[in-house]
Amino acid sequence: MFPKTIAWQDNKVLILDQRQLPAKEVYLECADAAAVTEAIKEMAIRGAPAIGIAAAMGLALGALGITETDYPSFYSELNKICDSLKGARPTAVNLCWALARMQGVCEANEAKPVEAIKGLLVAEALAVLEQDIAINKQIGANGATLVPARATILTHCNAGALATGGYGTALGVIRRAWEDKKGIQVIATETRPLLQGARLTCWELRQEGIPVTLIADHMAGTLMRQGEIDLCIVGADRIAGNGDVANKIGTYTLAILAREHEIPFYVAAPLSTFDLTIKTGEEIPIEERDPSEVTTLGGRSTAPEGVAVRNPAFDVTPHRYISAIVTEDGIIRPPFEETLVRFRGADGR
Amino acid sequence: MFPKTIAWQDNKVLILDQRQLPAKEVYLECADAAAVTEAIKEMAIRGAPAIGIAAAMGLALGALGITETDYPSFYSELNKICDSLKGARPTAVNLCWALARMQGVCEANEAKPVEAIKGLLVAEALAVLEQDIAINKQIGANGATLVPARATILTHCNAGALATGGYGTALGVIRRAWEDKKGIQVIATETRPLLQGARLTCWELRQEGIPVTLIADHMAGTLMRQGEIDLCIVGADRIAGNGDVANKIGTYTLAILAREHEIPFYVAAPLSTFDLTIKTGEEIPIEERDPSEVTTLGGRSTAPEGVAVRNPAFDVTPHRYISAIVTEDGIIRPPFEETLVRFRGADGR
Repeated sequence: MFPKTIAWQDNKVLILDQRQLPAKEVYLECADAAAVTEAIKEMAIRGAPAIGIAAAMGLALGALGITETDYPSFYSELNKICDSLKGARPTAVNLCWALARMQGVCEANEAKPVEAIKGLLVAEALAVLEQDIAINKQIGANGATLVPARATILTHCNAGALATGGYGTALGVIRRAWEDKKGIQVIATETRPLLQGARLTCWELRQEGIPVTLIADHMAGTLMRQGEIDLCIVGADRIAGNGDVANKIGTYTLAILAREHEIPFYVAAPLSTFDLTIKTGEEIPIEERDPSEVTTLGGRSTAPEGVAVRNPAFDVTPHRYISAIVTEDGIIRPPFEETLVRFRGADGR
Repeated sequence: MFPKTIAWQDNKVLILDQRQLPAKEVYLECADAAAVTEAIKEMAIRGAPAIGIAAAMGLALGALGITETDYPSFYSELNKICDSLKGARPTAVNLCWALARMQGVCEANEAKPVEAIKGLLVAEALAVLEQDIAINKQIGANGATLVPARATILTHCNAGALATGGYGTALGVIRRAWEDKKGIQVIATETRPLLQGARLTCWELRQEGIPVTLIADHMAGTLMRQGEIDLCIVGADRIAGNGDVANKIGTYTLAILAREHEIPFYVAAPLSTFDLTIKTGEEIPIEERDPSEVTTLGGRSTAPEGVAVRNPAFDVTPHRYISAIVTEDGIIRPPFEETLVRFRGADGR
């Protein structure tokens, strides 16, 4: 079975510290919202759906810690915690989506005692987690129809159980194809600088015996040229109204390579990853992370001290490079500007 | 000034151990051909022109160690050393080129005493080094004409002083553009798995104060899309008769990205890198190196133990992606199948 990424236990949030994988399986015990915010910021937990769940649980923890008993004061304190969680990472929209959902529960129950609202918020955070797993399984079922028998599938970064409540989005599709005994195998890009492909995707797939081969990111072109890749599938951190996809840096490069070699390039993501309030990917904020992620590895220097560095954590892949987007509600195909409209209702935004 | 990559001193070959850069500047003292072969194999010295020089010097060292005094025995021993040096790395043709040149000197002086031939071989190896530096400077002068003022230039791996006798091929062009006060800056890809871009190119450029920014390999697409790259220039390990270029893995990916963004993609290489005995890049042997290069970094594990790995050290970029090839004899432009014919004579092969 897939690893437990995040759990609620005795009014604490347990987070599998992914920075330590695959060497160690260690759970952080977060007792308050600030600890969860820090875990998101420092990428102990990462992946768009997973940080949505973490934010919901962090807000529930925060709610439990609020001492005010009148609704307006409680609501005001809750919003402050929301703002701080929202600031943890800017690109994945699932974080905002989960917090908005939690705030909605609070607002809808304004008339109830604050203690009751706290209980409802905890229940809602747990529902976000449970629903995410169910959604991933549906994404997996929908996406597996795109996977031919004996396919070699390239994936980037980690859009797996570790990036979600469980099962995964892109890796959910791969899992389901594997469960369906399609005889697939996976090529995982290592995903510099933080090596989520090498450390997390390889670890996760090997735990289930799904054949996986690791490559350095820029080897993908050569493998495609040699006919060794049948399809690509990645996750997403935010999808704009026209189908432009923000995802882990390097996704754009892979999408161009896939088109150059006439290989399908699929994105798998829950509807909570869609941000239909923005028209194109140009409007998606791209997080630039600390240079030391590129110049060091495991505390060891990999470059001359003081060298200038660019370290965008994400890139935007224009919709024209994307063959289809797999969601829990079905497979969306181009032209996305038209087909995405149908999903506006489903998304509720 | 640029660092001294390799030198002949007191009948020993001094090789700057590039595996230890940028942390330490340590020279290996090679007293015989076997030590030089090992230094090439283990990449203490790397870069097509540099391993050509190392092979020539290694063969000269080997010649000095031959005890036979009659020509046929001497020649036979010399050929054995040649074969072992040739086997050190398969992709860069400069290694074979340099050894063929040394063998030619031996054969042309068959009538002389063996001790005299030994002296001529040492002199020839030193000439290979000196000529390489002069050739690089001419490549730099020719290539700099392609560089607009204030250009941001992307380069991959290290085709610098460290990859040659000195000055560099791709970095020779960059050096010359800098010396010409064109106000350029460089984007260096880190070049996984062995990080020659991060460790060597950044180090080399910073020593001369040429502005350089380090990126992870797969960030190049995003920078191109944002209009931040004006041109790309890389070195080569072998160039086929039709202009197909074997170079460090990842070059092919960058060439596709450059064409997608309408950015010129240049290759800088001495004529000794051309292998006009082969028609296309399909015939170039591609070295596959040890998986541990991908799964470890600085001795630390970066992936689950035992994971399958692909680790081709080079890739082949089809000529249709290449805007021009800069040589010491001038700039070769497409259609390469026609324009390369003119260089057949110059190359002497």
